[in-house]
Amino acid sequence: MNNQNTTNLISSPLERVRERLTLIKVGGKIVEEPASLKQLLSDFSNIKGHKVLVHGGGRSATAIAAKLGIESQMVNGRRITDEDMLKVVTMVYGGLVNKQIVAGLQAIGVNALGLTGADLNYMRSEKRPVTEVDYGFVGDVKEVNAGILADLIAKDVVPVLAPLTHDKIGNLLNTNADTIAGEAAKALSEYFDVTLVYCFEKKGVLLDENDDESVISKLTPDLFEKYKVEGIINGGMIPKLENSFEALNAGVKQVVITRADMLQFKTGTTIQL
Amino acid sequence: MNNQNTTNLISSPLERVRERLTLIKVGGKIVEEPASLKQLLSDFSNIKGHKVLVHGGGRSATAIAAKLGIESQMVNGRRITDEDMLKVVTMVYGGLVNKQIVAGLQAIGVNALGLTGADLNYMRSEKRPVTEVDYGFVGDVKEVNAGILADLIAKDVVPVLAPLTHDKIGNLLNTNADTIAGEAAKALSEYFDVTLVYCFEKKGVLLDENDDESVISKLTPDLFEKYKVEGIINGGMIPKLENSFEALNAGVKQVVITRADMLQFKTGTTIQL
Repeated sequence: MNNQNTTNLISSPLERVRERLTLIKVGGKIVEEPASLKQLLSDFSNIKGHKVLVHGGGRSATAIAAKLGIESQMVNGRRITDEDMLKVVTMVYGGLVNKQIVAGLQAIGVNALGLTGADLNYMRSEKRPVTEVDYGFVGDVKEVNAGILADLIAKDVVPVLAPLTHDKIGNLLNTNADTIAGEAAKALSEYFDVTLVYCFEKKGVLLDENDDESVISKLTPDLFEKYKVEGIINGGMIPKLENSFEALNAGVKQVVITRADMLQFKTGTTIQL
Repeated sequence: MNNQNTTNLISSPLERVRERLTLIKVGGKIVEEPASLKQLLSDFSNIKGHKVLVHGGGRSATAIAAKLGIESQMVNGRRITDEDMLKVVTMVYGGLVNKQIVAGLQAIGVNALGLTGADLNYMRSEKRPVTEVDYGFVGDVKEVNAGILADLIAKDVVPVLAPLTHDKIGNLLNTNADTIAGEAAKALSEYFDVTLVYCFEKKGVLLDENDDESVISKLTPDLFEKYKVEGIINGGMIPKLENSFEALNAGVKQVVITRADMLQFKTGTTIQL
């Protein structure tokens, strides 16, 4: 009765089967228009298993800022965030966009919880040092406390992450949504088998930039190097893919690059080691 | 070894000693000015045991709305919330005010989590029916799901509640912060011994409205009736106290009415059955 095998059948917490988690990052535009937002939330709710949504909101921030008489200044595609602009992004990302998504998900039975990095101190950053450019209240991520998120996710809570972090000395900081997604995915890989999905304007990484249907279905480090040398992959896609491989090296199971309206078809470019 | 007494020493979950929870509602003004906010958060952090903070934000909402060219319309002290105003209060209450409080608390070691009623579906309301007045997107509370909040509180998370609920069919709704505080306190009384603290502009309920120091230290239902008959308690204080007794009848242990800057001195009017 009391043999060794019986004991071995009871797995330790570390040995238990890891559950899957899908973390999806969507840009601003799709969550800022009621029709596309509704479709996105429906597609998102149909994804099986645990999930997390990371959103942008730049267009709304620019629009609200303009109405308040605050000019949006961008350098290298990044927003300069002075004190007034920080208030705008705190309102728009943390309030308007985040809470509309949360209410929309709750309406279709997804137990969403909207978070900035300050909430539960889940993501701490430091104000970016001033070099040639002073980005203002922009945060570089330093620490992710994924444990409490993992507990909530295990209880079928779906975190909805706004692109805001905090420095734990009282300041909220504007943080790129791609970065939030990558850092959260890496930290949650301690607890789950994570698929990180980046939605952008194309159906995936393209073999021919003039042919929207020429989606590369799978990318490995070798193929990436080959396509880079051949000039097939170039420009802004290179840092995006470098970040993807970095996430894979840090424990994320796979990265998918696709278009938000393709989520339901599970297509796009899958990136694996 | 295996006697009945040993078994009895292990108490059931229902029998365990209930922990104390202090739920504090502060008005808009104190959380909208950096100096008074800092003092408030410091005093709040010094309260022993589990705690919850409920905040307003009306002055900021009115100011931001004005800058956006949206006029604030009040009827019986309540804000008329049309579609544009709903966006403003979602930004200001759910974003700006809530997240600044959360970041401020995290900076002094309080593990704050900012919530609207949509988050975790913790508070569901219904759009107020149109009678003589159409309040617009204003919610009357119908259901509080305190279980998941209680779990988080037991893990030393401190919920920071914005005055917003949702109808679980996709709409956020503007909801009075006093109501949020009362409903949350009643629902959390299933799990904790709750002290509900309402901060307002006086040090407590006054015996003489012209003497700010004439604070009534204890109020019971009998004393309340007596002071009402004598005209000592009148006007807007009557519904406030009626709500307090209603909360006590629904399981809240005590209600305290005080001024925010008196929190550290634990004075004010204590209301008990």
